[in-house]
Amino acid sequence: MNRSEIKIERIITYRRILLKLYNDGEKNIFSYQLANKCQVSSAQVRRDLMDIGYSGSPANGYEVQCLIKSIAEFIDPDKKQGIALVGLGNLGRAIIDYFNGQSLKLEIVALFDKNPNKINRVIAGCHSYHINDLKEIIIKNNIKTAVISVPSTDAQQVADVLVDGGIKGILNYAPIILNVPDSIYVQNRDMITTLEKVSYFANYNNK
Amino acid sequence: MNRSEIKIERIITYRRILLKLYNDGEKNIFSYQLANKCQVSSAQVRRDLMDIGYSGSPANGYEVQCLIKSIAEFIDPDKKQGIALVGLGNLGRAIIDYFNGQSLKLEIVALFDKNPNKINRVIAGCHSYHINDLKEIIIKNNIKTAVISVPSTDAQQVADVLVDGGIKGILNYAPIILNVPDSIYVQNRDMITTLEKVSYFANYNNK
Repeated sequence: MNRSEIKIERIITYRRILLKLYNDGEKNIFSYQLANKCQVSSAQVRRDLMDIGYSGSPANGYEVQCLIKSIAEFIDPDKKQGIALVGLGNLGRAIIDYFNGQSLKLEIVALFDKNPNKINRVIAGCHSYHINDLKEIIIKNNIKTAVISVPSTDAQQVADVLVDGGIKGILNYAPIILNVPDSIYVQNRDMITTLEKVSYFANYNNK
Repeated sequence: MNRSEIKIERIITYRRILLKLYNDGEKNIFSYQLANKCQVSSAQVRRDLMDIGYSGSPANGYEVQCLIKSIAEFIDPDKKQGIALVGLGNLGRAIIDYFNGQSLKLEIVALFDKNPNKINRVIAGCHSYHINDLKEIIIKNNIKTAVISVPSTDAQQVADVLVDGGIKGILNYAPIILNVPDSIYVQNRDMITTLEKVSYFANYNNK
């Protein structure tokens, strides 16, 4: 993960916290408060917010609502964008449950599976298709972002079709490293790697 | 995420790739090949492997089996460790399905939920308990690592009990930032933040 990716992840995290504060009725926040909640330094928060072009008045703290708006202008696509999700096992369903309705500009709009019992259904307001129709549907709907939640044995084949259909960003939950062109952004979220890492630091903290 | 965390994540990823190569019958690998598969530089791979104390012979490539062993000595706990998982919705079940049997030294050994229909059951060989018994069970079994896969409204309360019971590392899938002591290692894996990030880079790549 390079610096730019870490920065973007921080800025998206600021927004998540700011939205919660806004819903709780908070009007202003100081950089050190936001920093504390995100476990970064105040200087880092101020630098990040300058980079997105937010010119608040740090003497009185930042205005929560304005800051949310500035982050949205920096991060969000201009218009609402659809996301494809491939793999309707427990993980795929969990992602739909967690995600839809939580983002103003992003929405999972098409689901895919190879199991005939899982296709031609509506899950959380979203239609499911056979995986054979993947390329056609993503091209037709101009979908540029996809989630892979299939078993690792199927993941590379799914990725190939996604790339072929014009997908530019992939969130990959399968525990393999996908082989895709450099121009495609891939975020791996292998649960095994993550849990091994957490366990490593749990033991390290425990020494 | 600091440098040390990123390094540990890279080393764990090397192992995942090496295990796959080993199962495919590969005996040796050059640093540039491993680097290509992980999308990092060869120099980075060599530096990381020196740091874990692996002294291979780069002229003929690294021996896959020895390298796996060296990484295991560096990363893995000395003996098998149990993990607690709290929240038996779709996500919790997906994590159990993905994880158990995939790691030699880590195993999810206790499940928790507040829904009476989901407790006192055996899921993938693992017993489920009522969340009221969380603290008692993790202390009794000396569990130091936990996964939170409950809705965000319940996550902080669960984290408080985990910390109280001696947990040192938390993998948090709920879309909130947990408030825990500095000594506890928390890895947030909020799906909303992640998908917003992937979509940002998908659009960025698309420009």
